[in-house]
Amino acid sequence: MKLAIYQGPPIRGQIETGFERLETQLCAAAIAGAKMVVFPELFLPGYNRPDLHQTLAQPINGQWTDRFADLARKTGCGLCLGWAERDGDKVYNSASVFDETGELLGHYRKIQLFGEMEKASFEPGDRYLVFTLAGQKAALLICYDIEFPQHCRALADQGVSLVLVPTANPLGFEHVSNTFVPARAAETGMTIAYANYCGSENDLRFAGLSVIAGPDAQILAAAGRGEALLIADLDVAKHVEPDIMSMQSKDFREVTTQ
Amino acid sequence: MKLAIYQGPPIRGQIETGFERLETQLCAAAIAGAKMVVFPELFLPGYNRPDLHQTLAQPINGQWTDRFADLARKTGCGLCLGWAERDGDKVYNSASVFDETGELLGHYRKIQLFGEMEKASFEPGDRYLVFTLAGQKAALLICYDIEFPQHCRALADQGVSLVLVPTANPLGFEHVSNTFVPARAAETGMTIAYANYCGSENDLRFAGLSVIAGPDAQILAAAGRGEALLIADLDVAKHVEPDIMSMQSKDFREVTTQ
Repeated sequence: MKLAIYQGPPIRGQIETGFERLETQLCAAAIAGAKMVVFPELFLPGYNRPDLHQTLAQPINGQWTDRFADLARKTGCGLCLGWAERDGDKVYNSASVFDETGELLGHYRKIQLFGEMEKASFEPGDRYLVFTLAGQKAALLICYDIEFPQHCRALADQGVSLVLVPTANPLGFEHVSNTFVPARAAETGMTIAYANYCGSENDLRFAGLSVIAGPDAQILAAAGRGEALLIADLDVAKHVEPDIMSMQSKDFREVTTQ
Repeated sequence: MKLAIYQGPPIRGQIETGFERLETQLCAAAIAGAKMVVFPELFLPGYNRPDLHQTLAQPINGQWTDRFADLARKTGCGLCLGWAERDGDKVYNSASVFDETGELLGHYRKIQLFGEMEKASFEPGDRYLVFTLAGQKAALLICYDIEFPQHCRALADQGVSLVLVPTANPLGFEHVSNTFVPARAAETGMTIAYANYCGSENDLRFAGLSVIAGPDAQILAAAGRGEALLIADLDVAKHVEPDIMSMQSKDFREVTTQ
């Protein structure tokens, strides 16, 4: 299966710009044979836009998700992206995944909210999403979620072999792309696709460095600091059963300190 | 300017497969806004096919170059690729570059032939190609050429800031992608796009790891071991004047050993 990740600048609150950019990248990726494109966190209406999160957040099965499904159908390429979701009086930092027919494969709410802005804008999620993509179990995490080994471990324990991760990772946190993402992949034997922003949004500068890491920590595709669309065949990734998988049989809560 | 590199398996002597693959990747890259796609060395008729080099080699302004130009015009995307060139009774390991209107920007013959197979199949080239791409001076090198610092130095001394490098780099030579290409870029302040094969061809297994390195040795895009199309914006690359540029004023032939 070919998977794509898109790294681009924030849309600066311009929702139609966002939809145009989704369509362009999906068209290009579809021609190159990609099954799906992963876009950054809160692609609509933007990550560092607390002024917009509450006012522009949309419901599941609302106008935005209808248009995401239409874009997938129209271009013949699935998509995974982050967006601000309203559910009654609560707003979530969410991500959805649609297959190339426009079917909603699943929806996920970020569990590990990062920093004051996120905690002011959003409620945390409380459940994992596991779905089937091209015959393998896949899951979503969002940004800071990936930094905690236990979330990847929990997903791997459910048989997940591919994790899609919309993110908004700023300058100064390059170790997430360079070290954490390959580490999580190798710790669990999963492939992890981490799609970040480049450029800046208000006072926040993003790190870029979007990456797909295979289960032996090898890099399957990596971006630099600028806009990039990367389309890579995942099937070359070695299917490894790392020794550390034996950690599955240990429950750390049972380990005591002398 | 957005530039793309394509990493794929060899075409196994199937010329029409090669043209189909060129067209698919050029279409995808054009939609994503790429000005040009760089393909591997001897993309037609294949790298490790000494049985085909002499028999299938084509002349400049022959059927192959006409079709390359047509593809560029039709897709709206320029291309740079390696192919076996016949000139009278001589055959060269060559690469050509066409802009998005189908204009031939230049043609280059590999200078540093590698190993017995290449030396049996090909004559070496004896001159650099410098051309203008999107307002900047660009040049071609092929595979082994990039391993010699003096070729990049000579190009940088002519004002070149971008070098396109079709390659066919085998397993065991990963240091070329990981170290030499970023080193050449940083030594000279140039951006270098190095497009390799993945998979195998007869008894030769390729390393993949195609890469675009910016002038401060930062990776602008990188592939893993499998098929990949990478489209990256080069304009984020820092325009650096490395200290080592002062080497321009030294001629190593004037340096003596005590």
